[in-house]
Amino acid sequence: MMKIAIVGATGYGGAELVRILRQHPHVSIHSVHASSLHGEPLSGSYPHMQTLVDDPLQSVDVEKMAQEVDLVFTATPSGVARDLAPQFIEKGVKVIDLSGDFRIQDQTAYEAWYKIESADKDLLEKAVYGLTEWVDVDVTETMLLSNPGCYPTSILLGLVPLVQHNLIDENSIIIDAKTGVSGAGKGVSQATHFAETNDNFKIYKANEHQHTPEIEQGLQRWNDNVNAVTFTPHLAPMTRGIMATMYATVKDDTSAEKLINLYKESYADDYFVRIREEGTFPSTKEVYGSNFCDIGITYDERTKRVTVVSVIDNLVKGASGQAVQNMNKMLGIDEKTGINFMPVFP
Amino acid sequence: MMKIAIVGATGYGGAELVRILRQHPHVSIHSVHASSLHGEPLSGSYPHMQTLVDDPLQSVDVEKMAQEVDLVFTATPSGVARDLAPQFIEKGVKVIDLSGDFRIQDQTAYEAWYKIESADKDLLEKAVYGLTEWVDVDVTETMLLSNPGCYPTSILLGLVPLVQHNLIDENSIIIDAKTGVSGAGKGVSQATHFAETNDNFKIYKANEHQHTPEIEQGLQRWNDNVNAVTFTPHLAPMTRGIMATMYATVKDDTSAEKLINLYKESYADDYFVRIREEGTFPSTKEVYGSNFCDIGITYDERTKRVTVVSVIDNLVKGASGQAVQNMNKMLGIDEKTGINFMPVFP
Amino acid sequence: MMKIAIVGATGYGGAELVRILRQHPHVSIHSVHASSLHGEPLSGSYPHMQTLVDDPLQSVDVEKMAQEVDLVFTATPSGVARDLAPQFIEKGVKVIDLSGDFRIQDQTAYEAWYKIESADKDLLEKAVYGLTEWVDVDVTETMLLSNPGCYPTSILLGLVPLVQHNLIDENSIIIDAKTGVSGAGKGVSQATHFAETNDNFKIYKANEHQHTPEIEQGLQRWNDNVNAVTFTPHLAPMTRGIMATMYATVKDDTSAEKLINLYKESYADDYFVRIREEGTFPSTKEVYGSNFCDIGITYDERTKRVTVVSVIDNLVKGASGQAVQNMNKMLGIDEKTGINFMPVFP
Amino acid sequence: MMKIAIVGATGYGGAELVRILRQHPHVSIHSVHASSLHGEPLSGSYPHMQTLVDDPLQSVDVEKMAQEVDLVFTATPSGVARDLAPQFIEKGVKVIDLSGDFRIQDQTAYEAWYKIESADKDLLEKAVYGLTEWVDVDVTETMLLSNPGCYPTSILLGLVPLVQHNLIDENSIIIDAKTGVSGAGKGVSQATHFAETNDNFKIYKANEHQHTPEIEQGLQRWNDNVNAVTFTPHLAPMTRGIMATMYATVKDDTSAEKLINLYKESYADDYFVRIREEGTFPSTKEVYGSNFCDIGITYDERTKRVTVVSVIDNLVKGASGQAVQNMNKMLGIDEKTGINFMPVFP
Repeated sequence: MMKIAIVGATGYGGAELVRILRQHPHVSIHSVHASSLHGEPLSGSYPHMQTLVDDPLQSVDVEKMAQEVDLVFTATPSGVARDLAPQFIEKGVKVIDLSGDFRIQDQTAYEAWYKIESADKDLLEKAVYGLTEWVDVDVTETMLLSNPGCYPTSILLGLVPLVQHNLIDENSIIIDAKTGVSGAGKGVSQATHFAETNDNFKIYKANEHQHTPEIEQGLQRWNDNVNAVTFTPHLAPMTRGIMATMYATVKDDTSAEKLINLYKESYADDYFVRIREEGTFPSTKEVYGSNFCDIGITYDERTKRVTVVSVIDNLVKGASGQAVQNMNKMLGIDEKTGINFMPVFP
Repeated sequence: MMKIAIVGATGYGGAELVRILRQHPHVSIHSVHASSLHGEPLSGSYPHMQTLVDDPLQSVDVEKMAQEVDLVFTATPSGVARDLAPQFIEKGVKVIDLSGDFRIQDQTAYEAWYKIESADKDLLEKAVYGLTEWVDVDVTETMLLSNPGCYPTSILLGLVPLVQHNLIDENSIIIDAKTGVSGAGKGVSQATHFAETNDNFKIYKANEHQHTPEIEQGLQRWNDNVNAVTFTPHLAPMTRGIMATMYATVKDDTSAEKLINLYKESYADDYFVRIREEGTFPSTKEVYGSNFCDIGITYDERTKRVTVVSVIDNLVKGASGQAVQNMNKMLGIDEKTGINFMPVFP
Repeated sequence: MMKIAIVGATGYGGAELVRILRQHPHVSIHSVHASSLHGEPLSGSYPHMQTLVDDPLQSVDVEKMAQEVDLVFTATPSGVARDLAPQFIEKGVKVIDLSGDFRIQDQTAYEAWYKIESADKDLLEKAVYGLTEWVDVDVTETMLLSNPGCYPTSILLGLVPLVQHNLIDENSIIIDAKTGVSGAGKGVSQATHFAETNDNFKIYKANEHQHTPEIEQGLQRWNDNVNAVTFTPHLAPMTRGIMATMYATVKDDTSAEKLINLYKESYADDYFVRIREEGTFPSTKEVYGSNFCDIGITYDERTKRVTVVSVIDNLVKGASGQAVQNMNKMLGIDEKTGINFMPVFP
Repeated sequence: MMKIAIVGATGYGGAELVRILRQHPHVSIHSVHASSLHGEPLSGSYPHMQTLVDDPLQSVDVEKMAQEVDLVFTATPSGVARDLAPQFIEKGVKVIDLSGDFRIQDQTAYEAWYKIESADKDLLEKAVYGLTEWVDVDVTETMLLSNPGCYPTSILLGLVPLVQHNLIDENSIIIDAKTGVSGAGKGVSQATHFAETNDNFKIYKANEHQHTPEIEQGLQRWNDNVNAVTFTPHLAPMTRGIMATMYATVKDDTSAEKLINLYKESYADDYFVRIREEGTFPSTKEVYGSNFCDIGITYDERTKRVTVVSVIDNLVKGASGQAVQNMNKMLGIDEKTGINFMPVFP
């Protein structure tokens, strides 16, 4: 059994890691860490964990943790892992970071969109960007894995086959994304007040969301010609789930059938990506609580546009589930281990 | 007091007409009609109307109604008003139709999208398309007013200023729309089952929704060059509200400020259209239960794209509220009469 | 037109007063007041009010307000009206208070349940408790009207006929109440975070809610023998609405029919209380956005228990709507004036 | 691996059995059966199962199934298992029935509340009522296990310690229960239409719910003096979850502390029942997707009443999870096997 620690266990991403890892057959949760509430049980913050995870919250003591654990998950606010990860790595402890700190190779872009200082260049270069289905390096020796953002996960899984095969006008990409409210995190604000969110549909940060450079970088990796994309996030009155509806103009006439076949081939070996048959589309509830990304594709001859619809659970495939999927690959075991849940429906 | 009748009073559109017209100072509801439940009070179908509207449901007797009422609202399934409206008009009774029967001038297009027979050409020509803010004929003598669809109302109010002023590439229009579940009507189906809709976000009829030709016709009226648009409807887990997020590439560089000023001028005399200040966007709840259409606009220099966000209450400005607004204009009275409600928030 | 001021306009109760009073035919909103954001428009806090109520928020200046307005609504946190109301009254300005400050005649009970100092005894004696349907004094000269709490309104309207007619064991009263989240007010907290409230049902303050003494006092007014009641509030995942399900053991055998007839007689002259027919019960949505209180009654021969179900919109009949109903009575005009809305359904 | 079949796989209970059993280490799902859609994959009815459970739906062929499977789950409408179970048992196949057909020993009561014919007396006598924590017989040889109803599970787990220890007035029991909409099943109806259920709270079948005799029988098993109880079900706008709030008058003065200790002792060996500390109460989301039943207890000296709050996921501990828990006991393995999920929160 590998021993792991979770830093940022009181956030939603951290709590979801606890839910998943608690039953992982090759891993034991050695300790849970947070920036406050030290000594109180994690179940004090999350009553649903009572009797299951009553471990006390601890402060982060790199020295001590390095002696006790093999791998650390950092599910922390921007800027925390930037400083913490190198300390663990230096002591031989692997890090999987769920924040945005190591996702953007372009430091200038990071600082422009995140408004804080970037991580060191050499650390960024060491970090493997863990969009699991598209990682093409052996990660069994990787010390620092940067887990993708929730939006970029749903979007890149939906668009990479198109840009990789050079099928679409690279300047025509529009992404209209919708997320559940858990995406805003556990912190309270007027924007997440039930009375003002329930029965309401909102748009926010249009053209200004910090996941934009991550999406563009992810696409450019497969196609140099991709430039700026339009990315519009919305807040839907639901707890979990992301749907990204993506539009692009094709270069040459095609058909839904051809495109669906392309996607099926692209993801033929990827258990967690499911391609829908022609004429059907996924909804967010159909992946609720699971690590699946379901994708539907259609093509409109009238407009020469392809529409790709991708759904994930933002806290699972969009965060903690994918982090464990990456951990599995780093351990050299089956990627499904411990995360092969069926979606909870209804 | 003008006497009116509502045909299709047991549907959501009909019930909303009842809610609004019950307190209209110049109108009295003479009778409510439905295809079944004759003799039972309307409040039997809608307990919230108890003691307020206990009128018995009646069948449709054109002869009798023509002697008793001045105007008929038809809030009926496709194909019903097509046959019924001419009978009323012939007897001198005005008709405001809330169905799609008289919205599409192109009979071939209607039949292709609606899959039923179109209304007669001469009747279509008589029908005034009542997107109230953009009607430019005197409707005080109009016998047949065709009330716009819910999606087209939100979309056309959002896009007309752009196409009218020739600001956007006519082939670049993409509309990503989200509706509440009341848009699906009162009928029951697996698709509207609470357990399968709650906490769920769905896409449906991508590129295939019957409102598409209505949207295209509405845009073409102001700009011949508009061709096919991409229109994608989604179902959000909420009761009321539509948000249309609309994308287009501009012909010449512009700015959010310029565009917002254009919209403010376009709607300077339109009480029910409210343009948001730069950097702010409307949410659906901010028009809940009201006849307002709120519009936000932004522009992205990186992509040369404008994003327009338009929200309405699908049952009010998207159906019954606009129908009453049109009725007011047909009566020659202030368009606000009886529909000047503040949105219900939270 | 009578001029009124609203103190506490940025809370949900205050905002709902604005929504209602804006169209009241005999009243004009002279000014809106809050403890912060002075100079900013009220619509800055409530975008749905844009173009409708852009009045700047003001601090409370008793001297100035007393010269300009006839009546002040205080929709303020506990303890504020206690100190403010006497200043207005002294200057001849009437006050309708929506807080709990003047509801409890027993100062010891107030201080035990509210944990703050009570209002002065002589002021409490002057205050009329405005459960409108049961007020039996002429309020046209009343200077201080204490508007009931949301829970007590739904509960007392449901139980008074039973205790008044001495039909139930006074020690058997159990009240299981459910409220929407707007009842918690506009302030943010973990308890109102959408992600933790949506799809969730909670119980809170069992036997400890500060509305308990108000309920008991309200019942004791009609029946000295009433002692302590069991009152359990719950939080339902919805925005508006209260349902109180109330249980009591009858003294003598009875029937649903007899009880329903008693309620119909009790409320024969009360437009805003609607009694349901035998075998049917109201739901909260059936009074949404309206000033109605709908009541259903059943009786179980097996247990000799009566069950009374009462629903209101907590922000309308449970707060601002009833406050305006009381204002109407203070003005000597029809109680329905300006609040005769049909519920918004669906 | 034991082979099992699920009859009624297209209902919510059946689908939840599939979700759970798919990963059970000692069981394989041999076949899924329904009354229609034969030959179509189960994932046709439940797209979230695509690629996971594409098994074709089959009709019920007792002969064939008896040769192929060891145990059958019947998750069928009332009256189906009554006729089907004896056929399986006769051929040596064990049956776990999730319907109400074998729950009520009193045939007259069954027929009065369910309005259909009861099962045979001798079959009823053979059936073990599987409220797992309170089963006191060895079930390893049991041929017919009757799985409790969702409401009775939450209620009996909450009340049995009180009646067993003779602590409460047996005539004082009032149960105010709230369920999510999945409790109404997958069938469509006006009552489950999203637009009429969302943001709405309803009461239904007050004093008339068919689970009443099951609750009374369950209590009487531990205390002969229990007579009729008051049971009031409500429908909350959420997908999953039951909260039962239960009230009773104590015979002798007690305290929350004493009662909580009693519950902790009663359930000391029961992993799936969690007793909350004094002053805290569970909410439904805290058991979402899990087999836990969380219980909070308080006592009010003013009224001498105890309040017990019990929450479950109606589809897990209230149906399929408990059925698997029972199966585990019938197999003689750890009751937690395959159902030890942490609740999904948020």
